[in-house]
Amino acid sequence: MSFATPSLPSAKVIQVDTRGAVILDEESPETRDSRGIYLPNYIEPVSHIAVDVGGSLAKVVYFTRSPEPPASPSVAATRGSSASNVSTPRSLSPTNDEHRSHPATPPASSSRMTGALTPLVLEQPTNFGAGLLGLTEGLLRDHILKRTVQHFPGGSLNFERFETDNIDTCVAFIQELIERSAQVNGVPIEDMRKGVKIMATGGGAHKFYELFHGQLQVEVRREDEMECLIEGLKFISLIPDEVYFFSDELISSVSHPSGSSTFGSTPKIPPAPTPSVIIGNSSTSVNPVTLERPGPNPPQYGVTFESNPTAQLPCLLVNIGSGVSIIKVDEDGSYERVSGTSLGGGTLWGLLSLLTPATTFDEMLELSEGGDNSTVDMLVGDIYGQDYSKLGLKNTMIASSFGKVFKKGGDKRTFSPEDISKSLLYAVSNNIGQIAYMNAEKYNLDRIYFGGCFIRGHAATIATLSYAIRFWSKGTKRALFLRHEGFLGSIGAWIRNIDTAEENASTSEPGSESND
Amino acid sequence: MSFATPSLPSAKVIQVDTRGAVILDEESPETRDSRGIYLPNYIEPVSHIAVDVGGSLAKVVYFTRSPEPPASPSVAATRGSSASNVSTPRSLSPTNDEHRSHPATPPASSSRMTGALTPLVLEQPTNFGAGLLGLTEGLLRDHILKRTVQHFPGGSLNFERFETDNIDTCVAFIQELIERSAQVNGVPIEDMRKGVKIMATGGGAHKFYELFHGQLQVEVRREDEMECLIEGLKFISLIPDEVYFFSDELISSVSHPSGSSTFGSTPKIPPAPTPSVIIGNSSTSVNPVTLERPGPNPPQYGVTFESNPTAQLPCLLVNIGSGVSIIKVDEDGSYERVSGTSLGGGTLWGLLSLLTPATTFDEMLELSEGGDNSTVDMLVGDIYGQDYSKLGLKNTMIASSFGKVFKKGGDKRTFSPEDISKSLLYAVSNNIGQIAYMNAEKYNLDRIYFGGCFIRGHAATIATLSYAIRFWSKGTKRALFLRHEGFLGSIGAWIRNIDTAEENASTSEPGSESND
Repeated sequence: MSFATPSLPSAKVIQVDTRGAVILDEESPETRDSRGIYLPNYIEPVSHIAVDVGGSLAKVVYFTRSPEPPASPSVAATRGSSASNVSTPRSLSPTNDEHRSHPATPPASSSRMTGALTPLVLEQPTNFGAGLLGLTEGLLRDHILKRTVQHFPGGSLNFERFETDNIDTCVAFIQELIERSAQVNGVPIEDMRKGVKIMATGGGAHKFYELFHGQLQVEVRREDEMECLIEGLKFISLIPDEVYFFSDELISSVSHPSGSSTFGSTPKIPPAPTPSVIIGNSSTSVNPVTLERPGPNPPQYGVTFESNPTAQLPCLLVNIGSGVSIIKVDEDGSYERVSGTSLGGGTLWGLLSLLTPATTFDEMLELSEGGDNSTVDMLVGDIYGQDYSKLGLKNTMIASSFGKVFKKGGDKRTFSPEDISKSLLYAVSNNIGQIAYMNAEKYNLDRIYFGGCFIRGHAATIATLSYAIRFWSKGTKRALFLRHEGFLGSIGAWIRNIDTAEENASTSEPGSESND
Repeated sequence: MSFATPSLPSAKVIQVDTRGAVILDEESPETRDSRGIYLPNYIEPVSHIAVDVGGSLAKVVYFTRSPEPPASPSVAATRGSSASNVSTPRSLSPTNDEHRSHPATPPASSSRMTGALTPLVLEQPTNFGAGLLGLTEGLLRDHILKRTVQHFPGGSLNFERFETDNIDTCVAFIQELIERSAQVNGVPIEDMRKGVKIMATGGGAHKFYELFHGQLQVEVRREDEMECLIEGLKFISLIPDEVYFFSDELISSVSHPSGSSTFGSTPKIPPAPTPSVIIGNSSTSVNPVTLERPGPNPPQYGVTFESNPTAQLPCLLVNIGSGVSIIKVDEDGSYERVSGTSLGGGTLWGLLSLLTPATTFDEMLELSEGGDNSTVDMLVGDIYGQDYSKLGLKNTMIASSFGKVFKKGGDKRTFSPEDISKSLLYAVSNNIGQIAYMNAEKYNLDRIYFGGCFIRGHAATIATLSYAIRFWSKGTKRALFLRHEGFLGSIGAWIRNIDTAEENASTSEPGSESND
């Protein structure tokens, strides 16, 4: 819930060169929303680490340089690490892996090496710091000892998620990143700390300011949450194949499952829902990549990726974290938080952790894939025995979420965790879609971007949000999704400090050039 | 969820004379939404029984005549019977109660006698049928044998609730009502059946048509659900003291509890929220009656009843049953179902029956009264450590309903049923209020009536809905409530057949005049 606030025009121009940007292939379902982005034409002048601390998750974004371009598609910036597995600091101990191989499925015990921060100010012609991707520490040492690594132009943007409850893990991760970067660059830790800043946003930027500042001994700057979200959206939607949407074909098949088409079939290019809808300049490509982690009964779908992104403003941004913020963004980038709801990801996770044996959000989503909500939900047909055709209410429409559960006299029946999970996922997603639609209608916006860690590339969630927007708008508005849906705020915090960083780089002390 | 449908103008004029109408005093909290209404100036020409069968509850409305006017305030038309207690047919066996007393708290075992249907067509000058209120069958027989009862003008509208799952109980109740009425009027059951009709509405009107028709052997007519809701609203809002709203004083005290005022204090006449709000002609009275069933920590409140009701159209009607229908009603009575949500009463009841030991909805509401939602909900202050004042988000505002429950790794903590109940009541009520507001805004309507069996006169529900409307509308719109909130559809079905009934009465067969 929110009060509307006056728009704050954002005059900032994004300084990061996104030409040739490539999203790196994922290694596991858990990291599908945190794949690295390779930026061949960008070199960060000063390293900073952006942290967006929300109610449930802390999202970290940072840039590393690479001695060679990652093959694409390949395994590179991100390594398999489940969201439920981030409570312990990632091991940095050397391994015996001497091969620069990129296994499609890394061993579960493999450490995740995401390269090193490499501020320009630290670079010496005779001793490049090596921002190495995919190397273990032992191997890194070998590299440094044996040869001087030439940087390939550009580098990679890296993404990490932590639970806010374990914010210490997040701090430890950043601390290790800084320490390792000092080592790789061959500079004292004190100098590295001078070259690194934390750009903190989200609610936790205020709450954990002292923690970050005290533990990391680097400068911490706080950035406004909403401004970062918008900056992040403006940046990330410039990346090819970042934005995607479900085709009408999918929407139709979800609402009218027929099963004639098998999972994995190449989707066709969908027609625009109506001629009045303009999504960019429609120079979209159809990516035959199957949607991540389909369920045992996958719906027929057609995912369309925007391979040639164009202007994405004006739009409505619906950021679904623990709660939901709904932000109107004008063509000039000015914005206003116009609405929100407390029924968000935290609601789904919280209720399902009480109602099912699942212990992680991914487990909950997996449960929902095998569920049948009609055992739990009261459908129009359950009440009417038929359609309520006069009102256009189909008999399969949900009239009351969980409406079949309550029975008088406390006759507590048992419902399957799968059915409960699907019902609640539908309920929360439908509701967000409905409120989002009403705001899009109010402000006459046709593009509705959904961001936030709630979505997690989950087919049923995306399909439900897509269907809700299509249902309520009668096909005149479109739900758009982002691969890095959960990282808008942290990307924005990273972007917003590029100018400042360049400025600082030109005025920084020469002492930072010493090597060990 | 719904498609919008074209408006269907309703040209019907309400034929029931409501002059002098009085709402009879309740006997117990469970019947506070089903108090009888005494109509001193109305005599029903043909008896019909209106039934609104929803997804969870079946609501029955019928009219009985009375040998004497009920004292007001007094116990009369409704007797204490809890909603959880309607699964068995009410006993009609004679008791020893010879006194026409109106105990404030009737014995738990007392049968509920609600008088008899008395169609004009059955009346003979020498043998009035006695529509007796508050009498047992044995006493009724005595009355019939001993004397001829003169009807006092008018009669009472009676209200009954049943669980849809136990629809047979509802059928049995109606069957007994018809049989008793035949006996009281001294006519054969066959004749009584000819003089009685069932007017069925709600989803179950279709589903249970054959059941009603086959079991009761009377004519069953089906009425459109939405039309009945609107007719019911138009009628019931003419009854003095039926419509009420929470004053600003209450809203303020709920959002900023200070506790300086004690429970039971006489509320003051509240000022209008803003000069632009016009609710009727503002000839409202302040009723010092305390709100039913306050919790252990009651908020300060001021309930204002519309003692002198005026035009209630145009308005938005939000009917909260198992699911929620949102209906725009124009000044001429034409209407359109413009929205709805599946997150309604069924959702709250269903989830709470899974999450708490409560076995009835009233128990769930009682639980919520002792709860503290801040143990379960993530508040703005939990995320930010302070207000997010730039966006006007107070630190006590709910950022994520149930947002504190989920903890990684499946650390299943225990939360109190009270706290869970309050959190979910807030979540569902807030959400309905938000969606209702957005529709009221879209259609430029200032009056938002909340109906349906979800509300049950429950302070926290009413306060939350009132606060949500006030919050989102910045005080420009007002939430209005109805004492007979759950009976709009059945009242409408009863009303809609007055004309037809009069017509039928004048053409009915003379055979119905025989007595036994």
